[in-house]
Amino acid sequence: MKAVVVRRGETQPTVVEKPRPEPREGEALIRTLRVGIDGTDHEVLAGGHGGFPPGEEQMILGHEAVGVVEDPNDTAFDQGDLVVPTVRRPPPAGSNRYFDAGEPDMAPDGMYVECGIAGAHGFMADYFTSPEEFLIPLPTRFAEYGFLIEPLSNAEKALDLAAVSRSAFEWDPTRALVLGNGPLGLLTLALLWRDYESLYCLGRRDRPDPTIEIIECLEARYIDSRETSLSRIAEVHEPMDLVYEATGYAPHAFETIDALAPNGVGVLLGIPEDSAFEIDGGRFHRGFVLENKALVGSVNSSVPHFKAARDSLDEFPDWFIQDLITDVTTPGNIDAAFETGDDVIKSVVEFDTL
Amino acid sequence: MKAVVVRRGETQPTVVEKPRPEPREGEALIRTLRVGIDGTDHEVLAGGHGGFPPGEEQMILGHEAVGVVEDPNDTAFDQGDLVVPTVRRPPPAGSNRYFDAGEPDMAPDGMYVECGIAGAHGFMADYFTSPEEFLIPLPTRFAEYGFLIEPLSNAEKALDLAAVSRSAFEWDPTRALVLGNGPLGLLTLALLWRDYESLYCLGRRDRPDPTIEIIECLEARYIDSRETSLSRIAEVHEPMDLVYEATGYAPHAFETIDALAPNGVGVLLGIPEDSAFEIDGGRFHRGFVLENKALVGSVNSSVPHFKAARDSLDEFPDWFIQDLITDVTTPGNIDAAFETGDDVIKSVVEFDTL
Repeated sequence: MKAVVVRRGETQPTVVEKPRPEPREGEALIRTLRVGIDGTDHEVLAGGHGGFPPGEEQMILGHEAVGVVEDPNDTAFDQGDLVVPTVRRPPPAGSNRYFDAGEPDMAPDGMYVECGIAGAHGFMADYFTSPEEFLIPLPTRFAEYGFLIEPLSNAEKALDLAAVSRSAFEWDPTRALVLGNGPLGLLTLALLWRDYESLYCLGRRDRPDPTIEIIECLEARYIDSRETSLSRIAEVHEPMDLVYEATGYAPHAFETIDALAPNGVGVLLGIPEDSAFEIDGGRFHRGFVLENKALVGSVNSSVPHFKAARDSLDEFPDWFIQDLITDVTTPGNIDAAFETGDDVIKSVVEFDTL
Repeated sequence: MKAVVVRRGETQPTVVEKPRPEPREGEALIRTLRVGIDGTDHEVLAGGHGGFPPGEEQMILGHEAVGVVEDPNDTAFDQGDLVVPTVRRPPPAGSNRYFDAGEPDMAPDGMYVECGIAGAHGFMADYFTSPEEFLIPLPTRFAEYGFLIEPLSNAEKALDLAAVSRSAFEWDPTRALVLGNGPLGLLTLALLWRDYESLYCLGRRDRPDPTIEIIECLEARYIDSRETSLSRIAEVHEPMDLVYEATGYAPHAFETIDALAPNGVGVLLGIPEDSAFEIDGGRFHRGFVLENKALVGSVNSSVPHFKAARDSLDEFPDWFIQDLITDVTTPGNIDAAFETGDDVIKSVVEFDTL
């Protein structure tokens, strides 16, 4: 079968021939339909993430997939079932309490591997295998865009953590700000659209721009960070009940406290490199306390978040999904699939159709 | 009646004669037994908090009180009932949704006044009046130490906010670190003692010291911050599921993320001044995300937290309460009551006994 891999010492993807994997006990064999590409894939290529699978000199890329059960093996699935796989798997040492509790997203470093990211092969191949418990069933209408469930599940988890952090008191949020107009930022805006009266998205792009068009079609207000810094948004626009960070820009963690309304919460998803700078730590600390604010970090997602994302995605308007997926490429044209640019929002590699 | 006030332009307390207040509709008249003194009182004297009651040139101090109902007026209380008052009252503009919801602790600046702190007279007088809904009934055994319920209620609220922030997943915290060995830090340690296997308290005092003795009697480990910085505690001792900040030292907000175990939460209660310094903001931000950490700020408390504090205090060992209250002074010796020193833990002004 064809597989898109990164090889040790290389920073570009390569298409190789590999044997089709055999499902083990409790695993199904999945025929891949589509695999999305995101910033993490580019970081994996650049060598910024964890290691290769044990004993391997290459790793199959891709963690945002949708596929069809080709061989149910001994699982409860039927041949032809549409599925999306989760990303984290037990480490070589075997399962642990986080997996046993169905919460691998809460496992610390060393207690998991991530398919296509660190320590385990991904899904960017004609076929992959997966244990049954890491496959979420989907109606067949998701065949072309079900790969969006994985990134959306990260947003579901993050918003869940944010909401529970405010559950000790009456909290009726109406104003939300998303930092970043990449695919995750736009998916999150679409998710918040149902529930928030007042939506904003911070970016640093000139018009005309396809992401700004989507932002405005979602009735959100685009804020150019070159004109209005995050610290000034509360004053220039309005204070926010929720700030959702999807930029990986380290100063945003601090400026979020300035942007929040009393009793508000900021949720951090970006993963910045080390970055030293000076801040007014007293103001930051005081802002937390005097206005009961919170900051929560969130990474990855588990089966319940995938199921929530499936249900949410089903309510997204067709135009949004169509506008979000800007590039559909075949494995034979893999370099094009990994090209970035202001006209690319979401690239997807198509292996097959239903 | 005698009242301990701060007068405009002064930074020392003064005992003055004032008319006994008359309870209005819905208010009871309370005969004060004891009023505790804390860091906030010293900040009020130094002018660091909000203004005087409207139209007044002096404010009665004190927000940690216990007293006896002298005149129930039209309330449901009986004469002789022991009570503790809450601190926040509606602002001059009248009540608002935070008070209507029973959550004045969540009200932002401008939507409350605070008795003895900002905009309203406190309780450090022979008598005070209070609306019925801001009085919590106590069994008479609390007469000598019921004033500890107010500071303890702040800890109850903060720990509640911390716990709910982790309620989206299985969280079974066993290791807690309290930053600060003042009265609030020690009260919090006593509260955590019931539930945590492994307790630590960070301070910067030499032995012998009465707070270190209390820390160790609570089976907690004293950490001298001059020897082991907060950032190194995870490595030198162990990573913490909970960090409780009661120092007001701004760098502690950042270092807390280093001290936390994966999925841990830090709760901030201190109120630092502006303070600029350099930090590795990338590491801070990344720590939040990759290990699902949270930081929550918490201020003040409402009736349910007072009730929880009453129940918790009832379970504290006698020796703890006796060792915590180091100074009992009369209003006639008010300067001594406000003296600080390493041998003073909790000072209290006694107006009367049951």
